[in-house]
Amino acid sequence: MTSRIAWAALALIGVGVALSQSGSRADDREQEESLRVLVHLNFADTGRQGQGMKNISRILEADPGAQVVVVCHSGGINVVESSRTDHADAITSLIDRGVRFVACENTMRRNGITRDDLVPGVGTVPSGAVEVVRRQQYDGFAYFRP
Amino acid sequence: MTSRIAWAALALIGVGVALSQSGSRADDREQEESLRVLVHLNFADTGRQGQGMKNISRILEADPGAQVVVVCHSGGINVVESSRTDHADAITSLIDRGVRFVACENTMRRNGITRDDLVPGVGTVPSGAVEVVRRQQYDGFAYFRP
Amino acid sequence: MTSRIAWAALALIGVGVALSQSGSRADDREQEESLRVLVHLNFADTGRQGQGMKNISRILEADPGAQVVVVCHSGGINVVESSRTDHADAITSLIDRGVRFVACENTMRRNGITRDDLVPGVGTVPSGAVEVVRRQQYDGFAYFRP
Repeated sequence: MTSRIAWAALALIGVGVALSQSGSRADDREQEESLRVLVHLNFADTGRQGQGMKNISRILEADPGAQVVVVCHSGGINVVESSRTDHADAITSLIDRGVRFVACENTMRRNGITRDDLVPGVGTVPSGAVEVVRRQQYDGFAYFRP
Repeated sequence: MTSRIAWAALALIGVGVALSQSGSRADDREQEESLRVLVHLNFADTGRQGQGMKNISRILEADPGAQVVVVCHSGGINVVESSRTDHADAITSLIDRGVRFVACENTMRRNGITRDDLVPGVGTVPSGAVEVVRRQQYDGFAYFRP
Repeated sequence: MTSRIAWAALALIGVGVALSQSGSRADDREQEESLRVLVHLNFADTGRQGQGMKNISRILEADPGAQVVVVCHSGGINVVESSRTDHADAITSLIDRGVRFVACENTMRRNGITRDDLVPGVGTVPSGAVEVVRRQQYDGFAYFRP
């Protein structure tokens, strides 16, 4: 009887150890995990957009494996239009370093912008607003507004 | 003896299965869960406020069950004042679709605004700033600034 | 045999209880835990910066134990420069109440600002942009842009 209690206790201890180890692993992962950041570009001010590009460069310097998604919509759609942007070179360079730029298809439609009008390498999403929410809520991205 | 080890092992396996299943359920829930978004309206620019209303409509189109809370405070309090807002119809329509608009009681007091001055259906919170933090920290809402 | 099944079942029940209790503790902690907020000051408008100071005061009134980190970088660096800020007294008072103000070393270098130029008590971080992301992603801080 006592030996059975001992075995049951051992089982519980084993589970406890397993749980605490999985906890440690989670902590380690958190310390080591790449930065994940949603950059919200929904404003037309090109100076401020340029500041955003610099902010992203700094994040990549600190963590070359950072996951950066730049959502361009509403008033900020101009930043990814080839004919209007002041930041084509910076965008191309950041895309080369793994940053993902996406334009909002709603905003594009409303403004008669086609995929051919975008800086090469820029993707699209059905809704920029939804993407801003989804990346935070589902993928654990931090929010950053330049 | 060996059969006792077997039983203890079985107990551990059972727990392992239970844990991994609960993990799967969490993943499923995350995939299916409604969008939750805190819209931060703390600026007076009515054009930009109108852009925010459009953003919210897009989120509701993507997910009619989305939980949207719009916190209006500081310079953005005008958006929910009946006599000053440019967006009464949009607000009423969004409230009908389940969006929650709340005005900051601190800001109201400072500006001599009463509940009767608010667009019908708009609620209040003691502090808009605190609500912005609480919704993110306690309820897992994404942050969105139009 | 049946008693062994009973013991194994008991082990599972014990683990279940332990798990559900740790769940309850997490819930309780969440209800009681201090507010944690990252205030993003990356704009030069001193009126709006002052609004941010008031927002922080309101958060501390609601929760005197709130953890508040104010990241000052890019165009917002002026708020913590002794010679340029309009808010030295407010900053000193908030620091006394436990708020942490940090200036971005990248921005400081670019603008020839040294630690001696900062309002006393203001700290620094290597990169303001990275700090904004890390506090949200690693420490569970809410985002707040005045």
